[in-house]
Amino acid sequence: MKITAIDLVPVAFRDPPLLNSVGCHEPWALRTVVEVHTDEGISGLGETYGDIGHLNRLRTVAPALVGLDVHDLNGLHARVTTALGGETGSDRHGLTGKLTAESTVDRVFAAFEVACWDIRGKALGRPVVDLLGGAVRSAVPYSAYLFYKWDAHPGAEPDEFGAALDPDGIVAQARLLVERHGFGSIKLKGGVFPPEEEIEAIRALRAAFPDHPLRLDPNAAWTPATALKVASELDGVLEYLEDPSPEIPGMAEVARSSPLPLATNMCVVAFEHIARSVELGAVQVILSDHHYWGGLSRSKELAAICRTFGIGLSMHSNSHLGISLAAMTHLAAATPNLNYACDTHYPWNSADDVLVSPLSFVDGAVPVPSGPGLGVELDRDALARLAENYRKCGLVQRDDTGYMQKHDPSYERKRPRW
Amino acid sequence: MKITAIDLVPVAFRDPPLLNSVGCHEPWALRTVVEVHTDEGISGLGETYGDIGHLNRLRTVAPALVGLDVHDLNGLHARVTTALGGETGSDRHGLTGKLTAESTVDRVFAAFEVACWDIRGKALGRPVVDLLGGAVRSAVPYSAYLFYKWDAHPGAEPDEFGAALDPDGIVAQARLLVERHGFGSIKLKGGVFPPEEEIEAIRALRAAFPDHPLRLDPNAAWTPATALKVASELDGVLEYLEDPSPEIPGMAEVARSSPLPLATNMCVVAFEHIARSVELGAVQVILSDHHYWGGLSRSKELAAICRTFGIGLSMHSNSHLGISLAAMTHLAAATPNLNYACDTHYPWNSADDVLVSPLSFVDGAVPVPSGPGLGVELDRDALARLAENYRKCGLVQRDDTGYMQKHDPSYERKRPRW
Ligand SMILES: [Mg+2]
Ligand SMILES: [Mg+2]
Repeated sequence: MKITAIDLVPVAFRDPPLLNSVGCHEPWALRTVVEVHTDEGISGLGETYGDIGHLNRLRTVAPALVGLDVHDLNGLHARVTTALGGETGSDRHGLTGKLTAESTVDRVFAAFEVACWDIRGKALGRPVVDLLGGAVRSAVPYSAYLFYKWDAHPGAEPDEFGAALDPDGIVAQARLLVERHGFGSIKLKGGVFPPEEEIEAIRALRAAFPDHPLRLDPNAAWTPATALKVASELDGVLEYLEDPSPEIPGMAEVARSSPLPLATNMCVVAFEHIARSVELGAVQVILSDHHYWGGLSRSKELAAICRTFGIGLSMHSNSHLGISLAAMTHLAAATPNLNYACDTHYPWNSADDVLVSPLSFVDGAVPVPSGPGLGVELDRDALARLAENYRKCGLVQRDDTGYMQKHDPSYERKRPRW
Repeated sequence: MKITAIDLVPVAFRDPPLLNSVGCHEPWALRTVVEVHTDEGISGLGETYGDIGHLNRLRTVAPALVGLDVHDLNGLHARVTTALGGETGSDRHGLTGKLTAESTVDRVFAAFEVACWDIRGKALGRPVVDLLGGAVRSAVPYSAYLFYKWDAHPGAEPDEFGAALDPDGIVAQARLLVERHGFGSIKLKGGVFPPEEEIEAIRALRAAFPDHPLRLDPNAAWTPATALKVASELDGVLEYLEDPSPEIPGMAEVARSSPLPLATNMCVVAFEHIARSVELGAVQVILSDHHYWGGLSRSKELAAICRTFGIGLSMHSNSHLGISLAAMTHLAAATPNLNYACDTHYPWNSADDVLVSPLSFVDGAVPVPSGPGLGVELDRDALARLAENYRKCGLVQRDDTGYMQKHDPSYERKRPRW
């Protein structure tokens, strides 16, 4: 079953003013919807980043994939490698670590790889989870992903979620997300306010949700000394502390004395980072993400590495639509040692999905789609609307810092900040 | 597609008097042929060890697999784990390392897992290599696997291979195997004679085959001091030195000063051994073997671990028939970072195969079978003959040491010996 054509559709969808350690989400989030067509009339879907650099790399690679068999993932990886010719992407927004030529290949490869799994599942009449080794859970638990946020983008109407700029606002947001979706774990994106305030927010969450596992992710906003102070204050309160400090040596410094396990989606974001991290004992939990770990098959390899080295496994998310959520859910369902509820931004963005039937959370978990392939169907009208958004919105790459600086010219990107 | 029944047929086939560090191969080698049947009328083949302990574990597990979908490898692993209930096998012949409950599961799981891949490939009309990620090579190179040997089993007629008890005999054997099969690499099973004699045999091979990569595997017969002496003498002559000394700490001691990379299929034989080996830098090459690394999918995970940690990857063999060779070939063809020619005993045993069309070597490589599944067909008359051999031969487990002692009562099993 050979690839005959690939459609790449950059899309934009509304995103609330979510704050993080490098600024604020812009009003539009960007993604690329990938559709791979085959000579047997079966097409498959993928979803990946929409930043212009990545989009251009997808466009460079796509023609080189025509004629490839959809089973031939080794061939796909080789063709992506050749077509990119050693080009290295950059992580301009600064939230997912340094890229190399090799990890750039894995990011581009992943978008097409997922579509190939979708095709293979459709051809066989089986959900992707079956092809990945079979479901060890029928629904995948996700965490409520809390953000400090403004009530509205500057100059716009307030959104439905309201402001969250202090512990009360964070608890109110948690109540909204937990009531609406049933989440059984909670993650707070930190690195926005001084650590003392974020510790207070976590304590308020603990009081309001005595039984929910809690996580805090300041995106490397703290020095190791600050991180250790927070870790000792939140010992017994957090299930893990995510990326408190920058880089593997910094995380290792924290890990040596931290009473809390450390998690990362910033300092270990490619296979080439793992050996050094293991050597230094830098992290106890890796957040996998098939979008940059090279798709579903390589994410399973990452899971095997975590299992083998006694490293916990969780799952990372960027702002995304339902195709990604479906792929994440199939992967997570087929991964026995996924020890934690997965992250997802979906509740913030699902109003704009491109699926005929958007996925939903049942008791905080997404039931594994049971249809063939990813089990999702593209809503072509919605896709056209989001593609039109992309053309009109004027954004071509994520720039949380620049957006923040428009509204606060004194804002500086600084890491660590505290 | 659900499993309805499983046939387990223990077989015995003629084996020449091949010598190693614990004794001599008995006249009969034992294996178990596994045939898994499904409710769609498609059956799949596997091949695994024939030792009685393993066979009994297969028999314990098989009924628990009825009703399982052939895609559900996670479910298969869970059912094997439950059915074995923590039972731990033993490695009585002492050549493939210590077993644990977990690695015992992987050994039993592997036999059924391969059959499931065969079924899935047949159902889809595709060779297994396609389901494993696609062929990166159309034929898989194997090495000429040389053994010191007697000309005949005691009391029997000489076999076609003749004696090999000194450098001339080893070179003559190499010429026979290289001429017959076209092998481009050579491995000598050592640990039989004092190291000086085996060094001489390697030097004689180097003189006779100036361009063939060479390996020597004494199966942990040497102290680290002896191993280092051999390594320094054979620096620049061997591509790797395999298991010179026992256990991870011993190998690590050798590795610290050895000019040659060390390989193993004895001290790192399960996922639980890897972290310690990486920590100590004990080995530079791991010989994978799907029969004990948990089948084809877990062997691909091992390959990913090797790729990630900069460890070379080769492939180990025990005495085996063509079903195993087919599985090894599909796996090797789908594994990009398999850096070395694979080992195989097949030339010693192929006269007794259970396939309608036994596989053969073309220029030292096995072309990847192109038919659906493993691409091999069981010769049921041959299977019946080999099953009859099993019933008549009186052996139920491999015992190289006991066999040697029958002929030389003074023979002692000793590790390290030199
Ligand atoms: Mg994070
Ligand atoms: Mg060996």
